[in-house]
Amino acid sequence: MSLLRFDETTSDWVVFAPSRQLRPHDWRDRAAPTSDAGQPQAKCPFCPGNEAFTPPEIHGVRGADGRWKLRVVPNKFPALRIEEDPRREQEGDGFHYMGGCGAHEVLIESPDHNLFLPQQPTEQVQLILRSLQSRYQDLMRDRRFQTVVIFKNHGLEAGTSLAHPHWQIIATPVVPRLLRLKYFEASEYFDRTGQCLYCVIRERELAAGKRVLAVNDDYAAFMPYASHAPFETWIVPRHHNSSFTHVPSERLRTLAQLLKVVLLKLYTGLDNPSFNLTIDDVPRGDEDKEYFLWHIRILPRLTTPAGFELGSGMAINTVLPEDAAAFLSEVAVVQNHATAS
Amino acid sequence: MSLLRFDETTSDWVVFAPSRQLRPHDWRDRAAPTSDAGQPQAKCPFCPGNEAFTPPEIHGVRGADGRWKLRVVPNKFPALRIEEDPRREQEGDGFHYMGGCGAHEVLIESPDHNLFLPQQPTEQVQLILRSLQSRYQDLMRDRRFQTVVIFKNHGLEAGTSLAHPHWQIIATPVVPRLLRLKYFEASEYFDRTGQCLYCVIRERELAAGKRVLAVNDDYAAFMPYASHAPFETWIVPRHHNSSFTHVPSERLRTLAQLLKVVLLKLYTGLDNPSFNLTIDDVPRGDEDKEYFLWHIRILPRLTTPAGFELGSGMAINTVLPEDAAAFLSEVAVVQNHATAS
Repeated sequence: MSLLRFDETTSDWVVFAPSRQLRPHDWRDRAAPTSDAGQPQAKCPFCPGNEAFTPPEIHGVRGADGRWKLRVVPNKFPALRIEEDPRREQEGDGFHYMGGCGAHEVLIESPDHNLFLPQQPTEQVQLILRSLQSRYQDLMRDRRFQTVVIFKNHGLEAGTSLAHPHWQIIATPVVPRLLRLKYFEASEYFDRTGQCLYCVIRERELAAGKRVLAVNDDYAAFMPYASHAPFETWIVPRHHNSSFTHVPSERLRTLAQLLKVVLLKLYTGLDNPSFNLTIDDVPRGDEDKEYFLWHIRILPRLTTPAGFELGSGMAINTVLPEDAAAFLSEVAVVQNHATAS
Repeated sequence: MSLLRFDETTSDWVVFAPSRQLRPHDWRDRAAPTSDAGQPQAKCPFCPGNEAFTPPEIHGVRGADGRWKLRVVPNKFPALRIEEDPRREQEGDGFHYMGGCGAHEVLIESPDHNLFLPQQPTEQVQLILRSLQSRYQDLMRDRRFQTVVIFKNHGLEAGTSLAHPHWQIIATPVVPRLLRLKYFEASEYFDRTGQCLYCVIRERELAAGKRVLAVNDDYAAFMPYASHAPFETWIVPRHHNSSFTHVPSERLRTLAQLLKVVLLKLYTGLDNPSFNLTIDDVPRGDEDKEYFLWHIRILPRLTTPAGFELGSGMAINTVLPEDAAAFLSEVAVVQNHATAS
């Protein structure tokens, strides 16, 4: 069972997914968070040989030897489900809800339990990005879905408990409010100036130079001027393009190259920090708009938002992004397969 | 040094407080979070005898024996500082910032290092609430400050490292966007219906009954229909009042009573969970408005928001609030001083 409830005080929909939960009384006995990093791979549902532990495969890529290179499977404990009904309902006076209609998939990056994304060959990272695009396109065929949120959690502090590297894909039946806000600000900016806000920010950061982490012909990676958290990093395309799904294959290759450089710098410089990575994209029907530019946000989880942040929504960042960029620019990364500098 | 930078993509101001930070290269060697809970109180800056370890006292309450019952001191590592200038400046083309003008204070709840708030006598909790009001009123005399955010962090997962029970008070030079959003939604609701949204929600929850945790003549504690996190709890006044500063003394006593009951239920039922508590209040000049009702939000930190939540702003909650309320309603709380049921 999954449903969404409407919060009138903020105009947010909240996802309720009780099947992902411990039962209430289990909270009492909860242990500290654990990881399966040290467990035998025999128990890992994402390792080769354990395919039966996941729901049936949705998408897979196989090599000449017949072995899989990556797999996409439904999340076993989904936040949203394709079976639910997105009609809005009312439960007594003023309580608005709808079915938790959507999809929740997992992309298993490779058969290797211990290989971190930037250690993969560029070709494998490109294959992952291409498969994410493919899932996005397929999910958007269901016209009940309004956005597809693609993200990756790495490490305990980032909310993951399965160590085997993977991504997640969630299709939502409403446009989440933070994304609405970003589209609103960007479209207001476009109306006022005739320019894409994200293209302007990218050029501004490239001109200032001091927050730039890595660049190639197609992408710029920088720590934005008003970073919300220490070492927050954006990867922004250098060619205007509203949606990640429209990125041509050769630009997935250069994206793979830059992504490897950025993640290796974070890994080496910050001693393998936990992080969340999200792909910010447009809602259904806006894939050709000029006002928005898809981009990647990487949020290392080095500090804990506390009462002020939760109460006000305002972030406190203890590291200036130019200091973070200067620190990471001195971190040398050694890799076998990337060509970006 | 402290400053605020403007994020054009969300219209947020972000606070930068590098003096609260480790230096960038220290991130590399950071240890797991630690607490001083087990340390000798000789080292605790909030314990009696160690007053010299804090900046000079701003406010204090003393008993007949001359010993202090609570103290308010400036935060030694402030997020915002009274010396900074709130004028908006531009740093090159398009980078907007302002001085980190504001105030950041700490209220030490009592001399006792190990006494958790609900274990305090009602009189002491009332004294704490009265002192918070007093600091709010004093800070608002500085007309550069637009809001006063009062909050309490409890436990490591809630972002605190000093175990000695305390509250924090931050005065901000801008209205944080989440609070602006809450005022906007509430004032739209008022324009449309002529009613206070929070009074309507409170009555609706009291009528539904199944998410109510505790009630007395002046306050209702419930887990809201669209809770953003497991066991999120609100305490809402039963008499309309925009601002916490206007609560009369006798209603601070009944608030203290209910707050003790709620926190004891969480403490007992969930085995002393980490939580953040915030007081949501109006911005400067709106203290007499009918559209908003001040209230307390308690957010236990039982789950970790991950990539979907950070990417979309949409919460995934794994516990229905009616299940959480049913579970805690069966938790018996034993206390010496409270009269609320």
